[in-house]
Amino acid sequence: MSEQKNQVTPLSELGEFGLIHRLTLNLSPGQPSTVKGVGDDAAVLRFGEHTVLVSKDLLVENVHFDLSYYPLRHLGYKAAVVNISDIVAMNGRATHLLVGLAVSSKFSVEAIEEVFAGIRLACERYELDLVGGDTTSSTSGLMISITVIGQARAEDVTYRHTASAGDLICVSGDLGSAYAGLLVLEREKHAFRSAPGIQPDLEGFDYILERQLKPEARTEVPDILRQIGVRPSAMIDVSDGLSSEILHLCEASGLGCTLYTDRIPLDPATVSALEDFGIDPLTAALNGGEDYELLFTVPLKDYDRIRDIQGIHLIGHMSPASEGRFLQSPQGTRIPLTAQGWDAYPHTTP
Amino acid sequence: MSEQKNQVTPLSELGEFGLIHRLTLNLSPGQPSTVKGVGDDAAVLRFGEHTVLVSKDLLVENVHFDLSYYPLRHLGYKAAVVNISDIVAMNGRATHLLVGLAVSSKFSVEAIEEVFAGIRLACERYELDLVGGDTTSSTSGLMISITVIGQARAEDVTYRHTASAGDLICVSGDLGSAYAGLLVLEREKHAFRSAPGIQPDLEGFDYILERQLKPEARTEVPDILRQIGVRPSAMIDVSDGLSSEILHLCEASGLGCTLYTDRIPLDPATVSALEDFGIDPLTAALNGGEDYELLFTVPLKDYDRIRDIQGIHLIGHMSPASEGRFLQSPQGTRIPLTAQGWDAYPHTTP
Repeated sequence: MSEQKNQVTPLSELGEFGLIHRLTLNLSPGQPSTVKGVGDDAAVLRFGEHTVLVSKDLLVENVHFDLSYYPLRHLGYKAAVVNISDIVAMNGRATHLLVGLAVSSKFSVEAIEEVFAGIRLACERYELDLVGGDTTSSTSGLMISITVIGQARAEDVTYRHTASAGDLICVSGDLGSAYAGLLVLEREKHAFRSAPGIQPDLEGFDYILERQLKPEARTEVPDILRQIGVRPSAMIDVSDGLSSEILHLCEASGLGCTLYTDRIPLDPATVSALEDFGIDPLTAALNGGEDYELLFTVPLKDYDRIRDIQGIHLIGHMSPASEGRFLQSPQGTRIPLTAQGWDAYPHTTP
Repeated sequence: MSEQKNQVTPLSELGEFGLIHRLTLNLSPGQPSTVKGVGDDAAVLRFGEHTVLVSKDLLVENVHFDLSYYPLRHLGYKAAVVNISDIVAMNGRATHLLVGLAVSSKFSVEAIEEVFAGIRLACERYELDLVGGDTTSSTSGLMISITVIGQARAEDVTYRHTASAGDLICVSGDLGSAYAGLLVLEREKHAFRSAPGIQPDLEGFDYILERQLKPEARTEVPDILRQIGVRPSAMIDVSDGLSSEILHLCEASGLGCTLYTDRIPLDPATVSALEDFGIDPLTAALNGGEDYELLFTVPLKDYDRIRDIQGIHLIGHMSPASEGRFLQSPQGTRIPLTAQGWDAYPHTTP
């Protein structure tokens, strides 16, 4: 590394995923209990007959959330849920949670209690034990670090890298709604700033606001799949946007894909709100993120079992890598898929 | 909680431990796998015959470290070691590590690589697998969140709450040296600020600087105890200072204690450096923190086995709670023990 000593590469040049890739190059696990290290929604460890999943995420004020419209209790709830969702995306069940909070002195004890109340509410709702809590001060703002531990039967664990060419691509629920909710909150914030007396106009936006402010992990989806006897061949949760996530599945599995634009599920409330903003709903679904729906693949043979399941949508299929990664319109136009999802290190120039 | 809605309690009023106590009140674990939740150095989970330990810590720039004198690689190493030390303090062996980094755009890719290189070095040295890595941006500075997972035999796990009256109090290594190292670094930083051309004068301070900049977890201590057939009755690591840690043991075990001031181990280099600063070495040992030595209790019957073990010092004994918690000088003067260790939420007025 000595030749790099004087090199200064801006973070924006690599982006979040490029950076993680570079930082975790050439890791060679030595513990017999390590089944899967970095590179999926959670680490997979095996202790005897028990398979244990571990997920960890950071939420940073003014990067991941804006306290001018984000209630603290919702924030705590969401911080827990996004980690629980990672465990669900491995086809596991979250069982334990540890939380670390860094807070500046601008926060009161009662404010921190609100964040914790949200975390504890999520633990009750999803039946997790809160087994570790740590707080420290920060020089600016609030930061929440959550670790969630889960369990799964060894044969149930579902990775990103195990899809096959020909597999069907499915997604639960609908997409783009959390992003639509964010746009509404941002608009009202700016309206309030320019005319401080104004009351926020949030009527009719209940669904998309709830999707942004109180997301849920899709624990019912793996249950449904088990009931109908379908085992997903690969799975990931939609945290950064559909295009980013499907590209992760393609990359990890060494495959291509085709997504059909008319199959991507959108809620009418999302479409209507996005129209107000002049934003194409498809763009929001592909790049918006924070939906916490499950994106998964199933073998073609399961087509009949899955095609009529409510709340699960067939949106495309995996293909050999040589066929590329495309969005296809009903007219047959094919556009290359690129990840424009949420980026932790945005370029300053477009 | 409605009557508290308008209450605003400053964080400094409760302090770090008071806050954690309040936030984690009335937790009732429901998972059969939870053996011990909050309240010790690590959570204890049981999966079949396997006992798994989980520890989590946050390090925040300008709260826990100052990058003007803290090399990034050392910082990464230390962030890993403080969590490994928590697992050792449970009498376990650390096996897996997950890291979350929040970094502002002032950091280059190469800077983050340095932090990671330190973390990876600690993983190699202590034989841990790095199984999860996440980075995100922050609006200011660097923050490192580490989760370490460890393993132990069920019968080996050592808690804080299991000391008995009459047990001997032991500590490994020496105390106050990391704090002495910090004072030297702070002095040179201020000297450099007032005369920017000046070279830092760090000669003769190797030991205390290493104790501050490259602490190690005392993994050999539990090994030694096993070899001589001594099972600690309670254990904790010294992260916040001896007085804070012994009070944790007393509090958790419902006991009192007496510490003998002349028994508290101090290194000559520490004593000499602290003299320069006009600071009583005993005060540094009691309140300095960051030594990452192990503080533990053993039954009185083990006195003969442990009294001559190099690097382990008998410094006092536990007593019934009614007898209080005291420091005792060779002359027999008894001073009540109070925790003045490192506080994440210092009062603004003394």
